[in-house]
Amino acid sequence: MEYKRPIGLDIDLETGGVIPGAKKLVRRLSDLKGYFLDEEAYNELLKEDPVVYEVYAIEQEEKEGDLNFATTVLYPGKVGKEFFFTKGHFHAKADRAEIYYGIKGKGGMLLQTPEGEAEWIPMGGPGTVVYVPPYWAHRTVNTGNEPFIFLAIYPSDAGHDYGSIKEKGFSKIVIEEDGGEVKVVDNPRWKE
Amino acid sequence: MEYKRPIGLDIDLETGGVIPGAKKLVRRLSDLKGYFLDEEAYNELLKEDPVVYEVYAIEQEEKEGDLNFATTVLYPGKVGKEFFFTKGHFHAKADRAEIYYGIKGKGGMLLQTPEGEAEWIPMGGPGTVVYVPPYWAHRTVNTGNEPFIFLAIYPSDAGHDYGSIKEKGFSKIVIEEDGGEVKVVDNPRWKE
Repeated sequence: MEYKRPIGLDIDLETGGVIPGAKKLVRRLSDLKGYFLDEEAYNELLKEDPVVYEVYAIEQEEKEGDLNFATTVLYPGKVGKEFFFTKGHFHAKADRAEIYYGIKGKGGMLLQTPEGEAEWIPMGGPGTVVYVPPYWAHRTVNTGNEPFIFLAIYPSDAGHDYGSIKEKGFSKIVIEEDGGEVKVVDNPRWKE
Repeated sequence: MEYKRPIGLDIDLETGGVIPGAKKLVRRLSDLKGYFLDEEAYNELLKEDPVVYEVYAIEQEEKEGDLNFATTVLYPGKVGKEFFFTKGHFHAKADRAEIYYGIKGKGGMLLQTPEGEAEWIPMGGPGTVVYVPPYWAHRTVNTGNEPFIFLAIYPSDAGHDYGSIKEKGFSKIVIEEDGGEVKVVDNPRWKE
C-alpha cells in the first residue's frame, strides 16, 4: 500500500503566520462587496482596496476522516464602525466541525446556526481554542490593532458554503463604539 | 433542531497546558511497563514511579466529521538512554488523520506505517505543525529539559489502537548519546 507522507513545518510566527509551501489566498476589500453595513465608508476605503485577510492552507483531497489545516492573517481595520472580518461560511457538508487556535493578536469568532442564532467568542492568542460544532457558520473578526493570526483545522471533506452568509449576513455585527469599546450588536440589515 | 454549543476556552500556557473542564488522563511510568528498552533502568526508576505525561481532552461523541481536541503535557526524563514518550497508537479507524501543534518545550514525533517504516519529525514549540496522515501510528517524545506541551486535533470517531505498538514497539527509538546528542536509531527489539 502507498501511504501519504507525514508533514512537519514551522509556522513563521514573526512575519505573520505564513505556512511554507501552502496554497495562499488573498482577500482584498473589493472581494467583500456587500458584506459591510456602511456602504459609504466601504466605497471610500475601496480607493485603497486594502488586503483584509490572507489564508495559507495545506489541503488534502476530499476524503472522510482526513484533515486540512490553515493559518489566517486577518489585518486590523474598520469599515465605518465595523471591524474587518472574514467572509464566514457554513460547511458544504454542514455537519463537519472545525477547531481554531489563536496564535497572535486579538479578536473573536461570530458563530451562527442556520436559524440565525448568533454567539460571540472572544479570542486572545496565544492559547485560545474554539470548537465550532457541526452546523454552525463561523466568521472571525479582528478587534485589535495588529494582525490577528490563528490556526484552523477542519475535515478535508468539509467544503465551504459562502452563499447564505453572503446573501443574509450574520444576525450580529461587531463594532467599535465611539469610546473605543468593542460591542456585539444586532445587525440592522439582518432578515430571517 | 437542537445544536451543540460552541466552546471557547483558554489553555493555561503558564501552568502547562491545562484545559479547563477537560477529561484528565495521567500516565505514570508503571502504566508503561514493557515499553522501554532498558528494563533495569525502568525498574530502578519505578521506585519513584514518576508521571510521564498528562492528557487534557475535550471529546465529542463518536461521529463522522466531528472533532476532538486535547493537550498533552509530556514531562522531561529518560529511562536509561531513552527519552520519555507517549504510548503511541494507530487509530481504531485506521484512515483517520490527526494534526498536532507545538505549544511549549521541545521534542518530536515518531510516526510509523503498519509495515514498520518509521519517520521522525522534530517539534519545537510554539509554531510547529505536524500532519499525521491516515494509517500512521504516532508517538511523541520529549527531548528537552522542560515539559513538552502540544495540542492535538483528531476526528471524534478516530479511536485508539494501542495493541500493536504495545506488542511490537516502534522500529526506531530516540536516545541521548553520551555527549548529549539526540539520536534516532534502530530499535534492537523490533521484529517485523
